[in-house]
Amino acid sequence: MKLLEERILRDGVVKPGNVLKVDNFLNHQLDVRFLDEVGKEFYRLFSDVRVDKIMTIETSGIAVAMAAARYFDVPVVFAKKTQSLNIDGEVYKTKIHSFTHNRTYDVIMSGKYLHKDEHILIIDDFLANGCAAEGLISLICDAGAKVEGVGIVIEKGHQEGGKRLRERGIRLESLAIVDAMNAETGEITFREQ
Amino acid sequence: MKLLEERILRDGVVKPGNVLKVDNFLNHQLDVRFLDEVGKEFYRLFSDVRVDKIMTIETSGIAVAMAAARYFDVPVVFAKKTQSLNIDGEVYKTKIHSFTHNRTYDVIMSGKYLHKDEHILIIDDFLANGCAAEGLISLICDAGAKVEGVGIVIEKGHQEGGKRLRERGIRLESLAIVDAMNAETGEITFREQ
Repeated sequence: MKLLEERILRDGVVKPGNVLKVDNFLNHQLDVRFLDEVGKEFYRLFSDVRVDKIMTIETSGIAVAMAAARYFDVPVVFAKKTQSLNIDGEVYKTKIHSFTHNRTYDVIMSGKYLHKDEHILIIDDFLANGCAAEGLISLICDAGAKVEGVGIVIEKGHQEGGKRLRERGIRLESLAIVDAMNAETGEITFREQ
Repeated sequence: MKLLEERILRDGVVKPGNVLKVDNFLNHQLDVRFLDEVGKEFYRLFSDVRVDKIMTIETSGIAVAMAAARYFDVPVVFAKKTQSLNIDGEVYKTKIHSFTHNRTYDVIMSGKYLHKDEHILIIDDFLANGCAAEGLISLICDAGAKVEGVGIVIEKGHQEGGKRLRERGIRLESLAIVDAMNAETGEITFREQ
């Protein structure tokens, strides 16, 4: 997505430790008008499949999932990273490791909002090692629902997550794939798509 | 907001310990079309003031803030509950106690996204003791920005938060105010507005 690559080049900041900061439009400040374009692009890319629901994980996936869901006209569900006092009944659980925060989260999803035979599109802001996406896929499989695909705003192409999902036969659409970045020069190289 | 009260009566579940569960449309599953109506209502209520930015706090405020921001055509910023490895530069900090999760969070907001003299509208899903709203107000004041008001989806009117904000002269608009709820009968009483 050209508009996204331009935005990353303009506003993204490369930091040591393989960090790409895009918090002025994607995950601290939210450029709502821009996210609307991102949502529209996911709708275009996945317009050929049935989508009953969009699933994401708190926190930074929520805004993108909301933007996409308006075009699909479906609800969003988001998996929660901590045991909430307010979830009861059947609950699907998994563990997800975050390399960004260097910790492992228990991730839960109420059984009331994920049903057998539903067609689910996963949307998230970043894909790096793929732990979050794989955790969500495992929750969806536990519910007997179907993963129609994974839509990612920024894939870190030099990490393994995207490769692993594609090898599993999961349909993955990343709006921008960063193949290399240099914290010293600030240079960012995108994969041709 | 009539539509919201009807939705709470239809889908809300009262649990012991003063808990009102509305996680099938507001904070676990998100009814995007309904949230759009909620956003529109906030726009109507605050249409007489200047709003440069909408501020909320992760996690469940994000979806409502996004929905409102589309109508105001302004960005959203959300305060973060944990120290992120990815925030540097000037940072505003405060502490917020969550009675729901029975813990105190360090809450941070990058100084890059909150500026002197900006007019800020706070949006959140719930107001009970008011700790989250007061924390956000303190971050906004630290930045030298102006709080134009607080928009809340569901205020728990039998708790102190709303009263305290109104006594401070903060403009507070709650789309539904629950004055009483009974976990045994499931009965919910709204304040006439």
